[in-house]
Amino acid sequence: MVAQARKVLRHGQLVTPKGVFLGDVVIEGAKIADVVPGGVDEAQLADAEVFDATGCWVYPGFIDAHTHMQCWTGMDWTADSFETGTRAAACGGTTTIVDYATQDKGMTLHQALDEWHKRADGTCTANYAFHMAIADWNDHTREEIADMREAGITSFKTYFAYDHLRLDDAQTMEVLEAIKPFDGILCVHCENGTLVNELQRRVLAEGITGPEGHPLSRPAECEAEAISRLMYLSELTGARVNVVHCSTRLGLEQVRAARERGVRVSLETCPQYLLLDDTRYLEQGEDGFAGAKYVMSPPLRKPTDIAALREAVADGEVDQISTDHCSFNLHGQKDRGRGDFTKIPNGGPGVEHRPALIMTTFEGQLGPMDYLHLLSEGQARVFGMYPRKGALAAGSDADICVWDPSARWTISAANQHQAVDYTTYEGFEAHGRAKLVFVNGTLAVRDGEPTGEKPGRYVAR
Amino acid sequence: MVAQARKVLRHGQLVTPKGVFLGDVVIEGAKIADVVPGGVDEAQLADAEVFDATGCWVYPGFIDAHTHMQCWTGMDWTADSFETGTRAAACGGTTTIVDYATQDKGMTLHQALDEWHKRADGTCTANYAFHMAIADWNDHTREEIADMREAGITSFKTYFAYDHLRLDDAQTMEVLEAIKPFDGILCVHCENGTLVNELQRRVLAEGITGPEGHPLSRPAECEAEAISRLMYLSELTGARVNVVHCSTRLGLEQVRAARERGVRVSLETCPQYLLLDDTRYLEQGEDGFAGAKYVMSPPLRKPTDIAALREAVADGEVDQISTDHCSFNLHGQKDRGRGDFTKIPNGGPGVEHRPALIMTTFEGQLGPMDYLHLLSEGQARVFGMYPRKGALAAGSDADICVWDPSARWTISAANQHQAVDYTTYEGFEAHGRAKLVFVNGTLAVRDGEPTGEKPGRYVAR
Amino acid sequence: MVAQARKVLRHGQLVTPKGVFLGDVVIEGAKIADVVPGGVDEAQLADAEVFDATGCWVYPGFIDAHTHMQCWTGMDWTADSFETGTRAAACGGTTTIVDYATQDKGMTLHQALDEWHKRADGTCTANYAFHMAIADWNDHTREEIADMREAGITSFKTYFAYDHLRLDDAQTMEVLEAIKPFDGILCVHCENGTLVNELQRRVLAEGITGPEGHPLSRPAECEAEAISRLMYLSELTGARVNVVHCSTRLGLEQVRAARERGVRVSLETCPQYLLLDDTRYLEQGEDGFAGAKYVMSPPLRKPTDIAALREAVADGEVDQISTDHCSFNLHGQKDRGRGDFTKIPNGGPGVEHRPALIMTTFEGQLGPMDYLHLLSEGQARVFGMYPRKGALAAGSDADICVWDPSARWTISAANQHQAVDYTTYEGFEAHGRAKLVFVNGTLAVRDGEPTGEKPGRYVAR
Amino acid sequence: MVAQARKVLRHGQLVTPKGVFLGDVVIEGAKIADVVPGGVDEAQLADAEVFDATGCWVYPGFIDAHTHMQCWTGMDWTADSFETGTRAAACGGTTTIVDYATQDKGMTLHQALDEWHKRADGTCTANYAFHMAIADWNDHTREEIADMREAGITSFKTYFAYDHLRLDDAQTMEVLEAIKPFDGILCVHCENGTLVNELQRRVLAEGITGPEGHPLSRPAECEAEAISRLMYLSELTGARVNVVHCSTRLGLEQVRAARERGVRVSLETCPQYLLLDDTRYLEQGEDGFAGAKYVMSPPLRKPTDIAALREAVADGEVDQISTDHCSFNLHGQKDRGRGDFTKIPNGGPGVEHRPALIMTTFEGQLGPMDYLHLLSEGQARVFGMYPRKGALAAGSDADICVWDPSARWTISAANQHQAVDYTTYEGFEAHGRAKLVFVNGTLAVRDGEPTGEKPGRYVAR
Ligand SMILES: [Zn+2]
Ligand SMILES: [Zn+2]
Ligand SMILES: [Zn+2]
Ligand SMILES: [Zn+2]
Ligand SMILES: [Zn+2]
Ligand SMILES: [Zn+2]
Ligand SMILES: [Zn+2]
Ligand SMILES: [Zn+2]
Repeated sequence: MVAQARKVLRHGQLVTPKGVFLGDVVIEGAKIADVVPGGVDEAQLADAEVFDATGCWVYPGFIDAHTHMQCWTGMDWTADSFETGTRAAACGGTTTIVDYATQDKGMTLHQALDEWHKRADGTCTANYAFHMAIADWNDHTREEIADMREAGITSFKTYFAYDHLRLDDAQTMEVLEAIKPFDGILCVHCENGTLVNELQRRVLAEGITGPEGHPLSRPAECEAEAISRLMYLSELTGARVNVVHCSTRLGLEQVRAARERGVRVSLETCPQYLLLDDTRYLEQGEDGFAGAKYVMSPPLRKPTDIAALREAVADGEVDQISTDHCSFNLHGQKDRGRGDFTKIPNGGPGVEHRPALIMTTFEGQLGPMDYLHLLSEGQARVFGMYPRKGALAAGSDADICVWDPSARWTISAANQHQAVDYTTYEGFEAHGRAKLVFVNGTLAVRDGEPTGEKPGRYVAR
Repeated sequence: MVAQARKVLRHGQLVTPKGVFLGDVVIEGAKIADVVPGGVDEAQLADAEVFDATGCWVYPGFIDAHTHMQCWTGMDWTADSFETGTRAAACGGTTTIVDYATQDKGMTLHQALDEWHKRADGTCTANYAFHMAIADWNDHTREEIADMREAGITSFKTYFAYDHLRLDDAQTMEVLEAIKPFDGILCVHCENGTLVNELQRRVLAEGITGPEGHPLSRPAECEAEAISRLMYLSELTGARVNVVHCSTRLGLEQVRAARERGVRVSLETCPQYLLLDDTRYLEQGEDGFAGAKYVMSPPLRKPTDIAALREAVADGEVDQISTDHCSFNLHGQKDRGRGDFTKIPNGGPGVEHRPALIMTTFEGQLGPMDYLHLLSEGQARVFGMYPRKGALAAGSDADICVWDPSARWTISAANQHQAVDYTTYEGFEAHGRAKLVFVNGTLAVRDGEPTGEKPGRYVAR
Repeated sequence: MVAQARKVLRHGQLVTPKGVFLGDVVIEGAKIADVVPGGVDEAQLADAEVFDATGCWVYPGFIDAHTHMQCWTGMDWTADSFETGTRAAACGGTTTIVDYATQDKGMTLHQALDEWHKRADGTCTANYAFHMAIADWNDHTREEIADMREAGITSFKTYFAYDHLRLDDAQTMEVLEAIKPFDGILCVHCENGTLVNELQRRVLAEGITGPEGHPLSRPAECEAEAISRLMYLSELTGARVNVVHCSTRLGLEQVRAARERGVRVSLETCPQYLLLDDTRYLEQGEDGFAGAKYVMSPPLRKPTDIAALREAVADGEVDQISTDHCSFNLHGQKDRGRGDFTKIPNGGPGVEHRPALIMTTFEGQLGPMDYLHLLSEGQARVFGMYPRKGALAAGSDADICVWDPSARWTISAANQHQAVDYTTYEGFEAHGRAKLVFVNGTLAVRDGEPTGEKPGRYVAR
Repeated sequence: MVAQARKVLRHGQLVTPKGVFLGDVVIEGAKIADVVPGGVDEAQLADAEVFDATGCWVYPGFIDAHTHMQCWTGMDWTADSFETGTRAAACGGTTTIVDYATQDKGMTLHQALDEWHKRADGTCTANYAFHMAIADWNDHTREEIADMREAGITSFKTYFAYDHLRLDDAQTMEVLEAIKPFDGILCVHCENGTLVNELQRRVLAEGITGPEGHPLSRPAECEAEAISRLMYLSELTGARVNVVHCSTRLGLEQVRAARERGVRVSLETCPQYLLLDDTRYLEQGEDGFAGAKYVMSPPLRKPTDIAALREAVADGEVDQISTDHCSFNLHGQKDRGRGDFTKIPNGGPGVEHRPALIMTTFEGQLGPMDYLHLLSEGQARVFGMYPRKGALAAGSDADICVWDPSARWTISAANQHQAVDYTTYEGFEAHGRAKLVFVNGTLAVRDGEPTGEKPGRYVAR
């Protein structure tokens, strides 16, 4: 099998936990056998497959710790399957996703996990781990937590919004206490669902039915309030939490205040909250409904929120940037919400474009060690995969992204691998691109195109 | 009638909005006719009743903006009626209370208001205004808000705890929007009821049934979380809010952060949160149940919370100190909760002792202008009674407290006028006491004892 | 054996990890069998030895994580042996000490550990664990680190001062890297020895030879500089550090700044730095040399340092208060330094009086949960003994201190159990005293006097 | 002689201590005779040589307070002599340098000073003052300090790194005390040499031998630690210090904290730390060794450090921007370190390009008064030359730079006057250029090219 051969990536600019230096990476089977400053002896190349990385940054494969593949979200199925989603991820340089396996009310966690394995196993180009989203907290679910831990799941999720998913504060506190014994981490969707429901009602009642009603019904205060609440629940129980998709300055400030009090909180944001603002909802497009492309929760925010989040990224306050990839087609899915924005399936694509978006956006402000932390190492550390993932080091999995910083290209639905009919970054001029992507030692992507291999495996933690 | 006569208070240390100076105060009828630096001419004393205020501070009558007289609280009736409660208030120097008229579920606001007038009118030594507490928010209640405004009520109250009283976040937001047009203010009891319910269940399940279980079931985080939530609701709507009985450092920090964001929030704390800590719950007394005296919500806190609140008072961050006077007898009422602390009626007395407690506690740290703000002017301003109340000035109501700072006495159930069988300040050595108290120009209290007059009137705002 | 019997402590005010409540503690053998809110059934008392704790706080036994018993310190042997030192500790309510086993240059760590066991085993009233102080860092020592870990030692110590002990910055960095794999913690004596040596030379050269020269030769900057250096070494390596005996505002500020950068630093201070200032060095006593009692390193500081440290304690920034108990007799030991303060053995006693000193000093500012953290739980957590030690909970070791807060007594050399001829707290009026002290279930102290039992055991971590 | 004639610079935009205005500058001999708002009368031009400054900013000549000309640095001689170095300086608009005269171990300060005069006197286009770097601190050196003061040297330098140069903390403290009587200032190279030595050893041991090993062996913590140490030494002695070439956010924070404590510290940074990041070390060039161009100490840092330093410049926290010009040829000098980055001579050129680099980089953020402070006045004030230097004012030396802000040109080794085979700013598009440069009243540079005059003189202070 190809993946068993010995491979050498030559003359790369290696981005390692110890800093950046020139050298070679040796892959043996599915593992990194060696990271060699200066490069290996010529003699060692004899029996190896050699790849030239001259002029390229060599990163451990990027990790996207927030995706929703092949998932029923209460309104519709997401457009990307695990097959198409992990292929697109790999094309962009992402070698591992952590997807939200989601329990529906009435379902057991075991059933959800089995279902997710059924959807993913054998189809994936990139690796996949699972968070487990809990929508039905009861005595049985509580008992299943330990089984999930056994099955390699150490991170969980709950919602403060969405009527079919959300737990109340007491239940959330119970989940935190259940995962604390093994130092698990709870990811929480922080929006105040009670307020959102009422605000949606009002915005519609005022006659605002288009996509621009979406941000009006989910103001920044709804996020910040929920984050503050979560911080106190973490403080009460001592358990770790992860604030997902933080989108506002107000929310950020609550995280900061909590950290000063000693709360054990990780912070995630997403490219959309760092690049796009809420004027996008007014986009018309050919049929007057293009604003629907941006209907996701939390919604796009104000330029001042973007500025605050970028500063937090630059100051090292953000642990990781993931995508909340949750794709729906504009035509056939999103457009069912024409005439009532609350009926537009919430979510957008992104798993393919994250590395290029971030490295282009922060050019001149951040360097390769920062990208390492934000796009790979942070995710691996927060979710218990480090240094198996997230490190370019001997003994780590051979998930590697050879990144060509000199590439110039334009993001477009026309050239993407995501199985969805648009991208929110249409026309974005990207600086840099994944040139070679290895997953468990197998070359999965060359020059932006998939090789057709499916080396992705489940990552038990 | 005596109240129609001309009165002159001579040689007092007048605590006026313009500062402190020596002089006389002239009362005509129910109003202050003049405030005279240096004192009036001897000639003017001819037809007047003269009172000597030498060596005394002359304050506008103190205002207690948080009382619950003659009120069914879900478990029991409070011990003090409007008659006993306002008499006790006056004995301590307080000439106006703002009491929480409280709607029960199924009742209209009109019914609640009528009921409160029925209880108070004609019986009161001190004046009384009403806040209206809303427990049943529906379309009819919404319409009644304007009528309440007409009836002189500009402040309202809602609860985030207590199942029979609390509104959810959306309803609370609606109340804020309903009162915003006339710049009303919403007082909110800030504790997360969902968490408290669950924590009470647990503490009892662990076998802790005595009064010391009370603080364990209502940790500081429950208050701070609710305060944070209220801050965002105020921010969303732009309406004014009043955080009542703030008891924790954590809660205080949320108010501070909100003020920096521009939220229009007033802050109230109470003597019990500035003087007593949670080791009181272990007090045994003669029958092992003395800790029940301190069962009130929020509960007494840690010494570090006391220190933080005192610092906030000294720094001018607290708008007013009121009492949350809500008295129950230890024997016959509180002791019904023996064996289950959740059954102990929540609340304690205080309306009589507040001025003496505060002036003694902050001796050497604060001065008369500070006491003016904390005990009278703050309340009048926050609740729309200034300068009719809260100001020693010509044209203001002749509510006056002549305070003798040299008095030394001991607070005790044996000498109090509150109609309840204990005080939480038993044995407190007080510095200073009300010597003469006028309500609407009528002498209501002399040397700590009531004259028997009942000049208290409803204060429409 | 007595320790095997069932014991019940009745009607105490229990200071537990979950908060404070009334109840009983049941001891079986060397463990706490149960903590019973409300108290056990009368029936359960039949076969038990019963101790009355009415009106007393029941704490887990206090822990002193910084002592030097029976130790050669470069100038002289400390006055207290493990036998006298742990007996004195127990008399004050301390049931566990963590002593600094100290390698001399040329000695192996194994030899140091063996020596310390020889000194302590079989003689102790209170339990004892060891930190290992490293004075000779070489390849052999590096290999011994793992053996120490096996032998139950997870905390180490190095010095930045004292020529016979100190390591340079590169060696200190190496120690940090050696202990990081098992998340060990390095305690560091933070003073800049190079500067101290030079300043001692100068002070003597200026003719200042008495004890008052001691603080002049060790200014606050020497401590703060060394703390800052340690913070960066921790930052470089990612390893945990403990700043011992922090004595200055300047040093505190460096710890604060480092915490904001994410440095993993614990903070210890001692009663002497919270109670005594550097005017003590001018104390004359009968022979003009009483100031020598206070010669310890770091030296006593300014009142502003005391104020800053007290505030840090109140704000929860200090993880634990221990003593640096290192006793020398004033007559026969300290007085060898007459005429040259640099010859006075450095150190003072304290292991017996810490709980009484701290609880009296912070009366009204801190409460029992704070004392739990500062005197017991903090030490147990920082040094890996929690919840076996530091918790009043079922399953924990039966190390218990029944503390009578109403006791009033005067600290004096005349009534102490420390085997040294003075105390730096002579005449201190203490509020509260250990009434009953249990070590591993055995009653070791009753009413301040030892029972003669020696139940202390080595605590492997 | 030309320099004795009367000269008038007409119609310039004058950047004076009093602000910016249009006018003429009159030079008589080596001094500025007058600064005339609006311009001189036509009559006065009769006997004068007139220069047109229309559209140009007229600055006092720029000062570079950190250069190493014609200096043995422990590995090699720097490439620029005083002759070539001061000519290049003048071409860029710099009329005075302050060079580091450097004592070698075993040499006296007098010998060093004599040597430096021998190298510089008579050869210089721009003026030159000397700092005296002390590498051998002993009783004799101490005595020489006063002589140096007599010889016009008020600033000194010591090192915390480099084994052949560095003093220990006690020696550094002694130097500070020696210069304090005449309010001298000590410039210190702040890196922890002990740590750097060990880290170099490790990086090489890991097989990283190329230029990228340089930053890995000198992490930000090494600088910040040393800065912190220096701050305390200044605090202990009360003497003034100058932190040279500050390159990190961490170091900046220590300076800030020290200033808040009242430490008398000046802050210098350099263009390279404001423009270039550490990815430069991976630059290959034609022979794979181009990264060596950037080997200087401290090394280039992260983008986040650049951002922090730029903000400090914009906020006025930086007293002066100088260059640490210390040039070595890439071919023949730097390349001796091929295969061992610790053998690459440390340093780079910059004296010629500083004004253009800074004014281009901060375009739109800073204005002419800021450039005055950062490039001329700051240096003159910190090092005791103001207002003789650093001020465009009557009576000041006629060192003047007429700056044409509309010039556009590209920095390149091909067009530079520095006698070295590369520039780290190759290809930089500069906005603005020195059009006329006067040194002591003599025209030294016209349109970027030297006139051949050598009017530079020693500046005794
Ligand atoms: Zn979400
Ligand atoms: Zn999501
Ligand atoms: Zn309340
Ligand atoms: Zn109330
Ligand atoms: Zn020490
Ligand atoms: Zn010690
Ligand atoms: Zn330097
Ligand atoms: Zn230099």
